Amino acid sequence: MTEPFSAVEVIVRKRDRGELSDAEIDWVIDAYTRGVVADEQMSALAMAILLNGMDRREIVRWTDAMIASGERMDFSGLSRPTADKHSTGGVGDKITLPLAPLVAACGVAVPQLSGRGLGHTGGTLDKLESIPGWRASVSNQEMFAQLESVGCVVCAAGDELAPADKKLYALRDVTGTVEAIPLIASSIMSKKIAEGTGSLVLDVKVGTGAFMKNIEQARELAETMVALGTDAGVHTVALLTDMSTPLGHTAGHAIEVEESVEVLAGGGPADVVELTLALAREMLAGAGVTGVDPADKLADGSAMDKWKDMIRAQDGDPDADLPVARESHDVLAPSSGVLTRLDALAVGTAAWRLGAGRSRKEDPVQAAAGVRWHVRPGDSVTEGQPLMTLLTDEAERFDRALAVLDGAYNIAADASFEAGPIVLDRVGA
Amino acid sequence: MTEPFSAVEVIVRKRDRGELSDAEIDWVIDAYTRGVVADEQMSALAMAILLNGMDRREIVRWTDAMIASGERMDFSGLSRPTADKHSTGGVGDKITLPLAPLVAACGVAVPQLSGRGLGHTGGTLDKLESIPGWRASVSNQEMFAQLESVGCVVCAAGDELAPADKKLYALRDVTGTVEAIPLIASSIMSKKIAEGTGSLVLDVKVGTGAFMKNIEQARELAETMVALGTDAGVHTVALLTDMSTPLGHTAGHAIEVEESVEVLAGGGPADVVELTLALAREMLAGAGVTGVDPADKLADGSAMDKWKDMIRAQDGDPDADLPVARESHDVLAPSSGVLTRLDALAVGTAAWRLGAGRSRKEDPVQAAAGVRWHVRPGDSVTEGQPLMTLLTDEAERFDRALAVLDGAYNIAADASFEAGPIVLDRVGA
Repeated sequence: MTEPFSAVEVIVRKRDRGELSDAEIDWVIDAYTRGVVADEQMSALAMAILLNGMDRREIVRWTDAMIASGERMDFSGLSRPTADKHSTGGVGDKITLPLAPLVAACGVAVPQLSGRGLGHTGGTLDKLESIPGWRASVSNQEMFAQLESVGCVVCAAGDELAPADKKLYALRDVTGTVEAIPLIASSIMSKKIAEGTGSLVLDVKVGTGAFMKNIEQARELAETMVALGTDAGVHTVALLTDMSTPLGHTAGHAIEVEESVEVLAGGGPADVVELTLALAREMLAGAGVTGVDPADKLADGSAMDKWKDMIRAQDGDPDADLPVARESHDVLAPSSGVLTRLDALAVGTAAWRLGAGRSRKEDPVQAAAGVRWHVRPGDSVTEGQPLMTLLTDEAERFDRALAVLDGAYNIAADASFEAGPIVLDRVGA
Repeated sequence: MTEPFSAVEVIVRKRDRGELSDAEIDWVIDAYTRGVVADEQMSALAMAILLNGMDRREIVRWTDAMIASGERMDFSGLSRPTADKHSTGGVGDKITLPLAPLVAACGVAVPQLSGRGLGHTGGTLDKLESIPGWRASVSNQEMFAQLESVGCVVCAAGDELAPADKKLYALRDVTGTVEAIPLIASSIMSKKIAEGTGSLVLDVKVGTGAFMKNIEQARELAETMVALGTDAGVHTVALLTDMSTPLGHTAGHAIEVEESVEVLAGGGPADVVELTLALAREMLAGAGVTGVDPADKLADGSAMDKWKDMIRAQDGDPDADLPVARESHDVLAPSSGVLTRLDALAVGTAAWRLGAGRSRKEDPVQAAAGVRWHVRPGDSVTEGQPLMTLLTDEAERFDRALAVLDGAYNIAADASFEAGPIVLDRVGA
């Protein structure tokens, strides 16, 4: 009888479309972290929240309770301002890899705590782990030192940072409760606020390959998160960006690192470069840094230098050969014309089925698995040319990957097709 | 990769208001029984079913899948016809205790597999376990023999009877997913059909103290269950009965046994006697037995004899003293007049908070805890007289019980109050 509430009471209130009180929210998050509220109770509550929603006050309190479940970091002692970026997850979304060293090269420190793959979207840590020697785990002291010396760090969140979120995130992944705006917003913002960044740019993905399938949902999520960040004193801006087509030419781990290095070398796919620069400019503005054009830092090699320093600081070898898949299979163009559609969800799911993703959180990923597409919407194709190359260490995975790619693209014989913009909208405080 | 579906796919389909296919339902029930679908996944699915519903086909399939998860019993070899009763659960609902021996005394065998307390309603097994020595667990062979020798048995369903339901029932109790018509109907009917009774009378409770708060919901549940039973070849009838006021004068375990024994002795509260007789008459009619008036069997002591035989057959001592609560607290009438309302939910929740109920499925219950009310709606009260006595082994429980009883009753200074009927409606095939 020492608990002030019962889990069932709290679940039933939300199930019956009631509002949870501040005290109930504080209790349920704390009790879940302590194991008093069981996983099966929290998943029922998560489903009730997904279907019945939470109002703004409830979301703010839920976020605060998750922050309060662990430690808060503080980078105000650094000699540079801090800025971070978070993407809601997309296919081929390797943007963090070139972006963090690029922004560091412009004089802003980037303390990026990242996650692993969830569903069909790739995880930044999984990608970086394809680099021989690189480690995701960094102590708080090391993180501070690396931000001072290199200027950027991409690493796993420690166990002490929003532990309630860590537990809930893993639970949502296996209980069909990922796609709830209040839970997505509070999960992202609790980690980012606890992380202690001074400013934050959110890349909210919209389209088939994103959790938000339409721009209205994405805008609601963006507005919710910007409000949470602003209330907590973090300068927060969101870009709504297209995720109907996968980013760049690769979805996987090692192959996305390769593509990121191309961008840092001053080349790379135009869409990846465009989005990287747009996010870098927002991060610099948020950190109050003016008069620096990040495009120059890609051109002059200083972003690449930061990349190498960052990888080495975490025991990785930036010049080592990356793992190569043992098996590959080409998908050929069935006709000639112009590619008018390449579906992000299908490509992401194919990469997942080839071994780049996880079914359960304890599963390993294949570093070399994934999909490389040779053309993007707007490109001309000739019958019989390779459209995509599927990569895996296990040839028996091709069939199920090919099945999901059936109908995933269109080729028009005579099309005046124009690809849409990447950045669809911007949400400020 | 050997499972034909993933739990997340099935959860997401129901979450997004889709219909589950027959194959998905068969799989999810079987996989849950095998432990491949985890508790936290099933509770999310249960919440989605509660909020988004299931159609008739889904409910029939879900019920069949739960029956198929275990064994089916067969009492067709008995020398007597069989009839069973099931209540959807109410406050002070001890009716099974006098009813089973009463119907047995009329020549119909009663094979009653019962449950434990769920939410604020009491469980029949919990009540009987307050009798020293009595055991709820009975093998199938013993059950058959006891039905032949005594004519009635109230016991726990064996582990082999609808094991999927057993697991799901315990899960729903702690996850706020009890009040879903598809899940209630399939839970009750899977056990009753698998139990092999020839006829069945359903006591569907309506009112504040019931899971169904209004008569429309109750009728929908009754019609769903009558259709499921009739389809499965079981003669099934439902009575819709009032549960806005708790039954009799007691809610708890030992104190409800006492009250049941009063009824078997030819006395007891009028409402308990009336409902017991109404259900007994339906059970006799369903079993095809005519020309016997169950009221005679209460008056002549033959129902009491059956009760004692039934308790002894399961190692209980029907003449032993029952446990008595260590602490008691009287609630006094604040004014004089006529009691016009005594809220069943409040009384049930108070009994639960006093120790008669469970917060988690592994919790014990206090045999002596509960609430005894000294007056019923329609009775006159005098300022300062005890309205209710709260009973518990732990005095620190009084405060929270008293809190829920605040506003749970009305006393009118000058009222010509008439209590409504107990049986509100009847639903046949």
